[in-house]
Amino acid sequence: MADKLHHVAINVTDLNRAIEWYMHNTDCVLEYSDDTWALIGYENCKLALTIAKEHPPHVCFEVEGAKTFGKLIKHRDGTESCYIKDPDGNSVEMLEQIKDEDN
Amino acid sequence: MADKLHHVAINVTDLNRAIEWYMHNTDCVLEYSDDTWALIGYENCKLALTIAKEHPPHVCFEVEGAKTFGKLIKHRDGTESCYIKDPDGNSVEMLEQIKDEDN
Repeated sequence: MADKLHHVAINVTDLNRAIEWYMHNTDCVLEYSDDTWALIGYENCKLALTIAKEHPPHVCFEVEGAKTFGKLIKHRDGTESCYIKDPDGNSVEMLEQIKDEDN
Repeated sequence: MADKLHHVAINVTDLNRAIEWYMHNTDCVLEYSDDTWALIGYENCKLALTIAKEHPPHVCFEVEGAKTFGKLIKHRDGTESCYIKDPDGNSVEMLEQIKDEDN
């Protein structure tokens, strides 16, 4: 079974304007937002809207063994991840669910 | 039911190098490639690797009523789509399956 694309993050300048645009033009669910980013849910995947100075645009894969790519940062939603770059400098987040053995 | 994220497209400069990198670092399937782009399949979504001069980086949503966003271009895989911009100028492709009534 192939890995999952967990989310894609794109940069926007005005978060509220962007949220409204995606909510209006696509059928989706606003899952989270604060002053620096928002997470929008689609049927199969998520879209993160991010402010450039806070987060780079990136694709995030849910993989087995994310720690083989770097030191993982734990997130409050029960995942941990690290960022790497592809050969062209595109940011790629490698994420996995936190396992009991990691605690 | 929410719309689907059909694929995300990111720009690369060397298509073969990028294909090898994603095939090596993630569990995926190479679904298509030619001289200008490649399509990589994940469990829930697809990643398009594109050469900048041929395709802009974009996210592609599979929606009902794509034609309300613009004139649709038919693709050989039984889909049709158009490109629009979000308020920040990010390219967004609106895609749907070609229906019999469209022929």
